[in-house]
Amino acid sequence: MSRITAARVTDIRFPTSIELDGSDAVNVDPNYSAAYIQLATSDGPDGFGLVFTGGRGNEVVAAALRSAVDLLPDSDLEAMLENLGDVSRRLVHDSQFRWIGPEKGATHMAAGAVLNALWDIKAKRAGLPLWELLARMTPEELVAVVDFSHLRDALTEREAFDILRRGEGGKEERIAELKANGYPAYTTSPGWLGYSDEKMVRLAREAVSEGYSLIKLKIAGSLDDDVRRLRLAREAVGPDVAIAVDANQNWEVHEAAPWMRELQPYDVHWVEEPTSPDDVLGHARIRREIAPIRVATGEAVQNRIIFKQLLQAEAIDVLQIDATRVAGPGENIAILLLAAKFGVPVCPHAGGVGLCELVQHFAFFDYAAVSCSQDGRVIEFVDHLHEHFHAPARVTGGRYQAQLAPGNGAEMRDESVETWAYPAGPGWQDLRARGLIDY
Amino acid sequence: MSRITAARVTDIRFPTSIELDGSDAVNVDPNYSAAYIQLATSDGPDGFGLVFTGGRGNEVVAAALRSAVDLLPDSDLEAMLENLGDVSRRLVHDSQFRWIGPEKGATHMAAGAVLNALWDIKAKRAGLPLWELLARMTPEELVAVVDFSHLRDALTEREAFDILRRGEGGKEERIAELKANGYPAYTTSPGWLGYSDEKMVRLAREAVSEGYSLIKLKIAGSLDDDVRRLRLAREAVGPDVAIAVDANQNWEVHEAAPWMRELQPYDVHWVEEPTSPDDVLGHARIRREIAPIRVATGEAVQNRIIFKQLLQAEAIDVLQIDATRVAGPGENIAILLLAAKFGVPVCPHAGGVGLCELVQHFAFFDYAAVSCSQDGRVIEFVDHLHEHFHAPARVTGGRYQAQLAPGNGAEMRDESVETWAYPAGPGWQDLRARGLIDY
Repeated sequence: MSRITAARVTDIRFPTSIELDGSDAVNVDPNYSAAYIQLATSDGPDGFGLVFTGGRGNEVVAAALRSAVDLLPDSDLEAMLENLGDVSRRLVHDSQFRWIGPEKGATHMAAGAVLNALWDIKAKRAGLPLWELLARMTPEELVAVVDFSHLRDALTEREAFDILRRGEGGKEERIAELKANGYPAYTTSPGWLGYSDEKMVRLAREAVSEGYSLIKLKIAGSLDDDVRRLRLAREAVGPDVAIAVDANQNWEVHEAAPWMRELQPYDVHWVEEPTSPDDVLGHARIRREIAPIRVATGEAVQNRIIFKQLLQAEAIDVLQIDATRVAGPGENIAILLLAAKFGVPVCPHAGGVGLCELVQHFAFFDYAAVSCSQDGRVIEFVDHLHEHFHAPARVTGGRYQAQLAPGNGAEMRDESVETWAYPAGPGWQDLRARGLIDY
Repeated sequence: MSRITAARVTDIRFPTSIELDGSDAVNVDPNYSAAYIQLATSDGPDGFGLVFTGGRGNEVVAAALRSAVDLLPDSDLEAMLENLGDVSRRLVHDSQFRWIGPEKGATHMAAGAVLNALWDIKAKRAGLPLWELLARMTPEELVAVVDFSHLRDALTEREAFDILRRGEGGKEERIAELKANGYPAYTTSPGWLGYSDEKMVRLAREAVSEGYSLIKLKIAGSLDDDVRRLRLAREAVGPDVAIAVDANQNWEVHEAAPWMRELQPYDVHWVEEPTSPDDVLGHARIRREIAPIRVATGEAVQNRIIFKQLLQAEAIDVLQIDATRVAGPGENIAILLLAAKFGVPVCPHAGGVGLCELVQHFAFFDYAAVSCSQDGRVIEFVDHLHEHFHAPARVTGGRYQAQLAPGNGAEMRDESVETWAYPAGPGWQDLRARGLIDY
């Protein structure tokens, strides 16, 4: 019998706050971090999952990971891998554990990482990258891994099945096309709020020369700064490159429209996270007030039930899934199906630690089997921290190249895990010894 | 200088699953638990706070409590107690910690417990029960402890101030009235889903004879059971006692109306948690479909931003605050002010461990200084586990008696903390030795 023999959880943090990589109006000084889980198995490849966080609190998610593992059934691993929908329901709806959510925050993210690790094992055993494993599952198999609870007023099993059955047509051609040409990317690398104007302009020009047709700037710290930076960026990239902006939840609902009117002359492709990710009605109001500027959100949306409402309320033009906030591939498939039902394009959130590596699989799967379209769709890319992964995301000519390595992409290099384990890893000890940090 | 000298966190659990106290359609076998925090001070009474949970996962909230304490400023305690609004913002909006929410789940509940413990110290230093401390604060002081972020499209500081200034009139009389007559209670003790019909009927009759004019039954496991139990309960209590029902999130949005139509003949006072607590639009639809049956929710609502939307969408008739899910007294005051602005009565959720002890303060404060009304308002009471508290909630003649002991009510008896510490406390060891549990 095949079994999970051990779960190893590590609190990994990178000292990104020193260079202000990743800084925005709300996340002013993140240390990009991962609560990282390795599931060892009795007879095959290990599985890996992670939760991205901003640093402090990563230890809480690590604790939640240990607790989520304890909820797994003590049963044959092969049987679990054949019934990942049941495993997901067991983790997400555990009759005691659920009180702490339900389906949100540290415990939900932890359940997601454990599920990601199980899917990693399943994909490695199949010898396929996760996106291709998903793309080659039948509509029946996919419907079985989705939790439709509290979705059925917007999306039934039958409707999901119909969407996926339509996606069967031409699937092989789309898989081949993805392997040949990849999937469009955009980049946030130039736009961090902590960067000087000069650095931002230089990086924006570099992004265009690297083949990106969409870049994103962080905004909503100061209106004057935003107008100046957007003017400089528009001058730097010219009229044909799209510029999205990201307010990172910093506005009250009524503040978004007047602020955005000042930025409209610079042709904004979308505005992301204009207010609290919990505020469905607020997003709907903002979208009405700033049309035709488009509204995007999702990286901090807690679960499929909020996404359902954002779609029902016509609150967003662009849906941004995140690989490590919801309950693993099953919940992300639910969200892709909802987006397809409502005809809203999915543009995944990435960056952080490992988010590019993980989330690309869902965009590739979406093109192969769900929306079957790349129109208006693009995966975020930030060129940070990829060197720590076994199979790093690769973007060339402004396109994600198809990941071909088996698994979900979460596996990190042993040396990185050891060096940046917090607080005792040698990387952190060295920073302390050099007086660069005091924590 | 006054300081916090130590923080002691304990994972306390009670073996309630053995008797199925607290069982409902979703929480089928809870072990009522508390992640409990004691803040020791250099020069005065200690402060106590807790987060109620259902058992498994309590250790995650305990970990989050330790991390939340680390976010407190290393400053004079008196200065902190004078600026609890600032302390709250520091805990809730920490630029790294917030990623794990924002403002939801384990980390948000933990921030709330730390804030509750600080308010406990403040109330004890003032020699007042928390409700009276709050009732005697000025409108300016109260506005300063509320976090209005992401609320201002529905409630501004100015509007809150006006509500509180109106509440100044007659406040002394209302405080005196609360001390003399208390506040109306209702009871869920008869209604747990795991109880036999006989036990339910007996307890319902007892509740009426004890003076309750409203009882609540758990439903949504099986329609046939619900119809039978509601018929038996209605026969037992007669036509003049109100019966509310609680579906504990178990329905899809479209399932609520047909189910409730079958129960309507038995005169349902409200239906609670018909669907996911995240589903604002779902609650609004259900309310329209089942009118005139009223909709109640709140015990699992993660923060003020969801409550804001429930009110904006006219999704609820009864707003149920919870003492240990949101970010302490400041966020509960925000929610009381929102409810007052929208004219919706607040009927607090209680039961669990310590929820009666803690939440009564907000209802008493609401009557003294915010809504200034008891019409249609009632605090839940469940007669469990009060013996573990220093100043237990007291209900006589169907009314909560005013708490007069200084503090917030969270302080537990040392012996209880020791006996039921999980997993090593002697209470748990004894249950294992007797073969009653295997965990």
